[in-house]
Amino acid sequence: MKTVKVALLGFGVIGRGFADLLLKKQDFLRKKHNLEIKVVGIGEYNGCLVNDKGVDLKTALDLREKGQWLDKHKDWKKITGKELLEKTDAEVAVEVVPSNIKTGEPGADLIEAALKNGRHVVSSDKCAMAHKFTKLKKLAESKDVRLLYEASAGGAMPLMSLARECLQIDEIKSLQGILNGTTNYILTKMQKGGMDLQTALREAQELGYAEADPTYDIEGIDAAAKLVILANDLMGMEKTYNDVEVSGITQVTKEAVALAKKNGYSIKLIAEISGSSLSVRPKLVPEGHPLDIDGSLNGVMFKTDVARDVTIIGRGAGGLETQSAIYSDLLRVSAIV
Amino acid sequence: MKTVKVALLGFGVIGRGFADLLLKKQDFLRKKHNLEIKVVGIGEYNGCLVNDKGVDLKTALDLREKGQWLDKHKDWKKITGKELLEKTDAEVAVEVVPSNIKTGEPGADLIEAALKNGRHVVSSDKCAMAHKFTKLKKLAESKDVRLLYEASAGGAMPLMSLARECLQIDEIKSLQGILNGTTNYILTKMQKGGMDLQTALREAQELGYAEADPTYDIEGIDAAAKLVILANDLMGMEKTYNDVEVSGITQVTKEAVALAKKNGYSIKLIAEISGSSLSVRPKLVPEGHPLDIDGSLNGVMFKTDVARDVTIIGRGAGGLETQSAIYSDLLRVSAIV
Repeated sequence: MKTVKVALLGFGVIGRGFADLLLKKQDFLRKKHNLEIKVVGIGEYNGCLVNDKGVDLKTALDLREKGQWLDKHKDWKKITGKELLEKTDAEVAVEVVPSNIKTGEPGADLIEAALKNGRHVVSSDKCAMAHKFTKLKKLAESKDVRLLYEASAGGAMPLMSLARECLQIDEIKSLQGILNGTTNYILTKMQKGGMDLQTALREAQELGYAEADPTYDIEGIDAAAKLVILANDLMGMEKTYNDVEVSGITQVTKEAVALAKKNGYSIKLIAEISGSSLSVRPKLVPEGHPLDIDGSLNGVMFKTDVARDVTIIGRGAGGLETQSAIYSDLLRVSAIV
Repeated sequence: MKTVKVALLGFGVIGRGFADLLLKKQDFLRKKHNLEIKVVGIGEYNGCLVNDKGVDLKTALDLREKGQWLDKHKDWKKITGKELLEKTDAEVAVEVVPSNIKTGEPGADLIEAALKNGRHVVSSDKCAMAHKFTKLKKLAESKDVRLLYEASAGGAMPLMSLARECLQIDEIKSLQGILNGTTNYILTKMQKGGMDLQTALREAQELGYAEADPTYDIEGIDAAAKLVILANDLMGMEKTYNDVEVSGITQVTKEAVALAKKNGYSIKLIAEISGSSLSVRPKLVPEGHPLDIDGSLNGVMFKTDVARDVTIIGRGAGGLETQSAIYSDLLRVSAIV
């Protein structure tokens, strides 16, 4: 049995989902992967849990369940995430901090610190990766460690691992995708429920799909950040957010949606890489097309030279669902630790 | 640079596609995978090409292009495929013979011979795999070699490698899919073109999507064979063809298709694993569902415990497209040779 030590940076929805799933899947990991994953540290914004024999995850989850902070935990130390990385001998940092979409911080800084410390990094942090992709990738290379970030673009949909592991003889020539579940939910409600944008948005907010400030979703900014990561990873580009031509769904009326529908089309917010151009904008998708998908689903169609069209559809977010991508990366890294 | 020697068993559409793509991708394989793939033998039903320094693929392709047999090739030998396996030191047998759907032969026999000889096997042969799955897998295990068959179910769609490489923490609980492009093409034409089944079938035959004898497609037999492979590979079952409850599309009328459409549904031939039951039958799929896909596309939706729904859509057949899956397997095997 191999043991891999993990420092978990962030204990929000994704971080707690990671801990919760680890408790549930311990037997599965032992039996199927002959692997013991031990969380030796958890970093929060005001302090950390540290225990080289393994942090008691159940107590940490229970505290937060009761609305308490981690400072009630026996493993609590008043240190920063960076100090945590220096204190523990974790081979892998799992960085799941909610970073700022305008700066990529504090995630980018934490990833950089972990890489400089010679740790492999698994990240779900689209903001950090979209802002500092090239710098962080080069740093990982120079330190001879791996930096994987499947969960940062497309949530539970395996996109980068699909291309890397399953389409090895293919060259990806272009791609189109729905990379934001909130806008897809809104557009679906406008089409199938005849709602206008504001009503559909309110419903999405009530159901918890959309944030109180939905700007980043409906203006296409969230999708654009993910598109940058895909362009850089899948096609070897060195794009940043400013290279994406973005227009969101705020100008889409229910009349336009109804007219499209009458003619056999859906209006979808499509993120696209074509040649060296990146764009996010509303486009017509014909009925029966692989990207004509309803609700909060995400989907990406790759156009390649051999398989031609391969489309993957899945949940673009979710505290549980996203763990599929995070653990997929973590298991890949664990194989080389 | 690593060299991997391959015996190519079969030189039909898929076998020629393999050779053709190898000629085109030699530089790509060297640069991206640091790999030289050398075909040291090609097996045909009436004899083989053998050359330990590498068979001249271009001449072999040219001969067949001109409608000639391989016996005009300088490397021709009047030996069987099994004798070829004994004569060469190929590490991998790529078995792409068109086998009989009722018996799985001659493919199953060739795979067995290759495994017994200690060769890794990559196969696109759904007939062989559907008939002899458990026996062949156990043989491979006992010989400590790999038997991979991504192309045998779903053509260019990565299904088994997706589950194995990209959904490592997930347990697949059930799946639903469209595993036959001909029937999907016919059902699409019945829906969008208002055709009856016979007219749509004739059009599919004229376009080369359907065989002169379309029985195996429209009666669901082809989809059922693929479903058996998926059940055994993805869910550890030991099913055979007789375990599948099969009904094809012959009873689907254009009136039924139109009525479904009016109510927001498409009729699709759905292959399904639910609990321990396997079935192939026409089912209603709502508009906007990931499997509501048009034309000759195939698609499979996995339901898992972590990612929840992951759907992959792609080309289920094609001399070029299928190579994506074959080479993906071959590159995986090459890494351990």
